[in-house]
Amino acid sequence: MDPEARARTVEDAVASRREVVNEHLDTYLPLADPERLYEASRHVLKAGGKRLRPTILLVAGEAVTDTPPGTEDYQSFPTVPEGEGPIDLLAAAMSVEIIQSFTLIHDDIMDDDRMRRGEEAVHVAFDADTAILAGDTLYSKAFEIMLDSGAPADRGLDALDRLASTCTFICEGQSLDVTFEERESVSSEEYMDMVDRKTAVLYAAAAEIPAILLGADGETTAALGKYGRSIGKAFQIHDDVLDLTTPSETLGKQRGSDLIEGKRTIITQHAREQGVAVDELITGSEPESVTDAEMDAAVATLEEAGSIEYARNLAEELVAEGIQELEVLPRNEARDRLEQIGTYLIERSY
Amino acid sequence: MDPEARARTVEDAVASRREVVNEHLDTYLPLADPERLYEASRHVLKAGGKRLRPTILLVAGEAVTDTPPGTEDYQSFPTVPEGEGPIDLLAAAMSVEIIQSFTLIHDDIMDDDRMRRGEEAVHVAFDADTAILAGDTLYSKAFEIMLDSGAPADRGLDALDRLASTCTFICEGQSLDVTFEERESVSSEEYMDMVDRKTAVLYAAAAEIPAILLGADGETTAALGKYGRSIGKAFQIHDDVLDLTTPSETLGKQRGSDLIEGKRTIITQHAREQGVAVDELITGSEPESVTDAEMDAAVATLEEAGSIEYARNLAEELVAEGIQELEVLPRNEARDRLEQIGTYLIERSY
Repeated sequence: MDPEARARTVEDAVASRREVVNEHLDTYLPLADPERLYEASRHVLKAGGKRLRPTILLVAGEAVTDTPPGTEDYQSFPTVPEGEGPIDLLAAAMSVEIIQSFTLIHDDIMDDDRMRRGEEAVHVAFDADTAILAGDTLYSKAFEIMLDSGAPADRGLDALDRLASTCTFICEGQSLDVTFEERESVSSEEYMDMVDRKTAVLYAAAAEIPAILLGADGETTAALGKYGRSIGKAFQIHDDVLDLTTPSETLGKQRGSDLIEGKRTIITQHAREQGVAVDELITGSEPESVTDAEMDAAVATLEEAGSIEYARNLAEELVAEGIQELEVLPRNEARDRLEQIGTYLIERSY
Repeated sequence: MDPEARARTVEDAVASRREVVNEHLDTYLPLADPERLYEASRHVLKAGGKRLRPTILLVAGEAVTDTPPGTEDYQSFPTVPEGEGPIDLLAAAMSVEIIQSFTLIHDDIMDDDRMRRGEEAVHVAFDADTAILAGDTLYSKAFEIMLDSGAPADRGLDALDRLASTCTFICEGQSLDVTFEERESVSSEEYMDMVDRKTAVLYAAAAEIPAILLGADGETTAALGKYGRSIGKAFQIHDDVLDLTTPSETLGKQRGSDLIEGKRTIITQHAREQGVAVDELITGSEPESVTDAEMDAAVATLEEAGSIEYARNLAEELVAEGIQELEVLPRNEARDRLEQIGTYLIERSY
């Protein structure tokens, strides 16, 4: 399948599941009292988002149950063992998207990223205190919603356990990310460990939790976790590439913001090892003071050092590893889709 | 029992359980990597704290299982139904204390309270970003630890559900508390609803979760929840009284800080209804600019309006209601202790 056809297939698959998620957002996370808190909590979720993680969750559920994509009601989904009550897989998908949303809200405060999904970040549209609380509210809501999947208690508990440890990893990863900014240099191992915790574990949870809830065997469950983890790392590396190579209007935020903020990425780390004075590429530290020409020159330097190519290759290897893991799953259309999603994650242009 | 004897009995009961909690803090919440994040996460927990909520949880566990206080290992606790594996009740106690600690860290950022338990608040000792993340880390850690209680899956899931909905209520309550500061006046109903969500639900969870985990019947479990909720409300009202009547050194923070920050309390609301110009009692808005004489005069005005007495009476009624709920429990020493704790909460002088 060529990249264009793959992009169409994956984007269609994501779009149809995004529609289901968006349609049911008000059901799972209604505008409760106090309204201002819930408006802030729902702000990022309502602003859009590709819904990649819930899509992976739903498709992984289809893959392990050998269900043709899009043919079953996600709120009443069949299980792997016969004769069990249906599972609300959409609740699990919603829970994972809500966790993602909580981390975005808190991260935007810490990074003072003022735009998110083309709209003002929560701490800008509301205020920092409300944004802290909005994130906190989403945090417990995600657990409440996951608890409502209707899975047998032991598997429900396993899924919760996975969600909780995932959240801990995300906090640890964000903490590493923040402290890396203050350090002279960061090794590739340290950077990948940070990406693993901050980003990849939520992809792993998205791929693994449906297998847990639906009663897949341990080998399948573990393989999906590894798939998610590999493509999650690749996703972040590709995001770092896009941050440098995509126009601001397409990104929905300032192009090269990582460079302006002095964030360590696998790209800057590689460039540093090639002798590039990364900290001197951009002179200003405020997005407004950086001209397009200055950013173009900085990106050209990173290109010349081979650093962007290096990151692209690393992302490709990770996706290949992730797809390899899927071999233990039954061969079906949903599994094909998971493979395509993995590849799409590093081919997407925004 | 006279108040002095009660205070001694309760303080002994709390002290011995506090010792168990403190001894095992490193086991349940070790100093993991990244260390700075975990140092910040453990900062408030290490700074001390009475451990009232874990004490209530452990004593409630003793009460429902008819266990003489302090005679069983909390990490290997007997259940109500015979023949079930032992429960790690200390894990549940730790989880509740960790949730409390998370809320303190985030609340201190929002209120810019700079001292906590006689030490610098986390956002002061570290920084606001680290404090946000430290709270977030404790949040998921509390869930992870509660998941390790060893209870049968269905009851473990019920306990998690209770913990998650409690956290949602706490966020809602804090949100109400923050928005109340911007409002002209707040009705007593609104204030009590805020206290219920912000404070009382965690007492309810502390009293109810051991009953859930240990397999007590529904009536007993519900009664303990109501007990916790009533004494939790009383606790907050008494805290509001203490904020005005206790010296700063004893409080571990500025006396009258609620008044300086313009926080609505049941006391200021009552005073307002009596015609007191509450907003003019204190002219400065910074703790440093408020003299002891000005604070003495403000408190005297509230005393004269009967507002402090009104709050004291309300707290007494709530404790009496809470103790009434305990009648469905077996009559034993632990149940007596729960009664004494309720009364002690509104007799304590700090």
